[in-house]
Order: sequence, then structure tokens, then C-alpha cells
Amino acid sequence: MASRPLILVSNDDGVHAPGVRALQRALRSFADVVVVAPKYEQSAQSHAISLHRPLRHDVLGDDVHAVDGTPVDCVYVALYRDDLLPRRPDLCASGINHGPNLGSDVVYSGTVAAAREAALRGIPSIAFSQLGRQTTRALEGSAEIAARLCRRLLEAERPEGQVPLLNVNFPEGSAKGIRPTRLGLRHYAEGVEVRSDPRGRDYYWIGGPGGVRHEPLEGSDTDAVDAGFVSVTPLRIERTFPDHFGIAAFVAAGEDP
Amino acid sequence: MASRPLILVSNDDGVHAPGVRALQRALRSFADVVVVAPKYEQSAQSHAISLHRPLRHDVLGDDVHAVDGTPVDCVYVALYRDDLLPRRPDLCASGINHGPNLGSDVVYSGTVAAAREAALRGIPSIAFSQLGRQTTRALEGSAEIAARLCRRLLEAERPEGQVPLLNVNFPEGSAKGIRPTRLGLRHYAEGVEVRSDPRGRDYYWIGGPGGVRHEPLEGSDTDAVDAGFVSVTPLRIERTFPDHFGIAAFVAAGEDP
Repeated sequence: MASRPLILVSNDDGVHAPGVRALQRALRSFADVVVVAPKYEQSAQSHAISLHRPLRHDVLGDDVHAVDGTPVDCVYVALYRDDLLPRRPDLCASGINHGPNLGSDVVYSGTVAAAREAALRGIPSIAFSQLGRQTTRALEGSAEIAARLCRRLLEAERPEGQVPLLNVNFPEGSAKGIRPTRLGLRHYAEGVEVRSDPRGRDYYWIGGPGGVRHEPLEGSDTDAVDAGFVSVTPLRIERTFPDHFGIAAFVAAGEDP
Repeated sequence: MASRPLILVSNDDGVHAPGVRALQRALRSFADVVVVAPKYEQSAQSHAISLHRPLRHDVLGDDVHAVDGTPVDCVYVALYRDDLLPRRPDLCASGINHGPNLGSDVVYSGTVAAAREAALRGIPSIAFSQLGRQTTRALEGSAEIAARLCRRLLEAERPEGQVPLLNVNFPEGSAKGIRPTRLGLRHYAEGVEVRSDPRGRDYYWIGGPGGVRHEPLEGSDTDAVDAGFVSVTPLRIERTFPDHFGIAAFVAAGEDP
């Protein structure tokens, strides 16, 4: 690693979001930082990648770039265009997201996807999300903790060939501490709301009335943030599920094609 | 289960793609089938969900619906709008995708995401993808096998509370058999191609020159399709990685906030 590590920063709220700027400022205390973030908000874009349309890239300032695509597009372009980063980054940090990414949120989140994309390409990565109101004070406090967590991740020993992907959530208010956690169970109010447009034609909004419920689960990220702690959850990217080999074998054994 | 099972069918190539229609026809031999698929092509949309814009829904015919959103939107709307499905589906089948979804493709695929969304909501699910040319003959052959695999999955015993998510790929040409597999290693030519538009401004295409390389891996989906077999891989949706709890604990233990 160079004397100062290089950190690639992205997010899904867009390059102008206060969370990504707070993260950039805090990381600059010990690292070289390049921001490559979506030009427009990309919440809930998950791991979408733009293979079927071209992308535009704008240089917004010193080490701040906007790409008019998804969070995954931003990380891909940063890593494979040779004029954005001075060298291969030592770490990728994504966020700080406006709103939580707890439990199964990680499947839908663009913030987590940016970190996942870098991890898939061999770069230790960490996604940050902030619960509650994103006041300047809350963001600055979270960004300082985020910077310390990034420094620790750079120092962490890791098994040969393994690339950590961490998912961090900051609680509302001042954090009481930091806890290693696992993904919790977060239940949304499901439903589709039907509305009628001014021309009398129906349209749908995804999501039911009412809020989100956390199922108590010891050691979970949901429990941690509800108790006022920062959660740090190690993720494993979707892969083969050996427990279901029996089911796959049963399904495959039906008949010869 | 009713005398005839109910199968929800979706895809990412769009409601008019030949793959989804072939799958629908084949499944009708033993099941009630409702297609809810994207109005427009949604390849590589991964698990994106439209929380920040409204959706339109068109009825295209008996039990064929188009939603102008992502594959995940389609499955969500099918499950939570009460006028699309006559009852809760017994199975969700996605595809047959135009092109493979092998190895890490599953992270980016909209076809797999539709199946994953149904699995997250408790419905056994299976994603189908076709290598090679999608001739009517190839698709009809694959759709017949797909229908048999769906029937087997409906019959499979499964551990209490566990929901199988299977990823199936059909090889080029006639299949020699069906194999239970694990995700293989698929390497793309990485890069960003820069072009200049008629106004002289640069734009980017994601993906480098040259093709895809499969790393040989015993028991993998890539090995299976390369040898002319149908692959059936059980997937585990991204979750906590207990092997990295040590790293998370090290990162969390840095300092008190």
C-alpha cells in the first residue's frame, strides 16, 4: 500500500448528496479519496449494470466524478477507465446512504451494490447507511466513525484470497458503541397502492401503508441500531447453497432430456 | 395445492420475448399459468425495484400482464395486487432468458432476480436461461425440460421453512442430460470502450473486447453447459458471512464512537 491508501467512494443517492461529501471529507484525513458517484439518485437500483446503453462521465471537480448510471456502473467505470483513479484502490467505501440498509434491504440497496461490485473485483469494501434525520451534525459524526472503520478494515488481517464486504448502519442520534452483527429480519408493510391519474387511468405505487417492523433477533443489525449502536455486518455474496444440493439433484433426476 | 398448481411466470427480456411464451405454453400442460413480465427489456437490472416512480399495468390477454418496470417489480405487483393472480402461486418460474446466467452472472441477472424476489416471499422459484441461438426449436425443447423441472420442484421435499431458489441453464444444441451443479467461475473481458458522439463528446460502453472465459471447476454450471448438459444450481441469497465475523469484530473494536 502507498503511504496514503487510495479509497474509491460511491453511493446511490447521487454525487451531490450530503452523505457522500461528508464521507469524502472524513476519509481525506488519512487517505487519497476519489468519488465516482451517480449523476442522479439511484436508490433501490440493486446490482443493476448498464450493458445496453452508453454512459456519460462528468468531471465535477478535483477527484469528484459523476456517471449517469447506476452505483455498479460507477464502480465499474472507476476501475476500468484508466483516467479516473491514479492506481488500483485499496478500499471501496459506499454511502453514507440516506436511510437504513438492514436485513434483507441489502438485496435491493444500490449503496450495498456499489460495495459488492468492488468486492467482486477483489477490493475490500464497506457500505454505510444512516438512520434518522441526515442533519449535518449527524452526518459528520457518522462520517468520522466511518473513517475509523475504513482505517481498521485496511489494517485487518484477512484469509488469503478472501475479500471482505461489510455493511454498516448508523443509529439515530449519538451512537453508544459499535457492534459486529448479522443481518436481522425487517418486515415491510407489503401492498400495492392504486391511484388514478388526471386522465382516469390507474397507476401503482409499490409498498403498503404503515411502517417497518423489526423482528427481535439476538446479535442482529436491527437489534443493534434499535439499541443505539452502530452495526457492522459481514456479507457473503449470493452463491451456491450446498444445503439444497439434494433438492437440485431430485429436480435434475426426473427424466433424461 | 389445488389439483392444478398455479405458476407465476416472469422474465427480464420483456413480455413479448419468445422465451417467456415458450415457457408459458409448456407449463400449461400441467399447471395454471399467469405471466407478469416487464413491458420493456430489463436485462442486467438485477434486483432493482421501483420505489420512487409509479408503475403502469397492461392486460395483454388471458393471464398475460405487462408492467412497465423491472422483473422484481413484476413479481411484487403480481403477489400484492389482488387482481392478477387467482390465488397465491405454488411456484415462480423466470425466463427462459436469452443468453446464459452462469457463475457470477446471477448477481447481475434480472431473470434470476425475479425468481429471487418470489423466493424471498416464500415461493419456491426457478430461473431458466438458454445458451446459443434462441431458435423456436431450441426454445421448445428447453421449455419442455423446464416444465419437467418445475413439476419435480413442486414434488420435492424441502426442509421446514426453507424456500428453494434454483438457477437452470440450457446448453447450446440438444441437452445430453441434466446435472445438479454449483456456480462456476466466469471471466469477462473487462474494460470501458470510449467512443465519440457526432457532437464530439465522449461516451462509454461497459465491457472490454473479446469474449468470456470459463475457468474449469468440477461440478460447476459452466463445466456442465460446456459439456452439453443442463445445469441446476441451488442458490443461497446474500446473507451474513460468519467466516468474516472476526474481521467485523476487529473493525468494530477500534474505538468507542
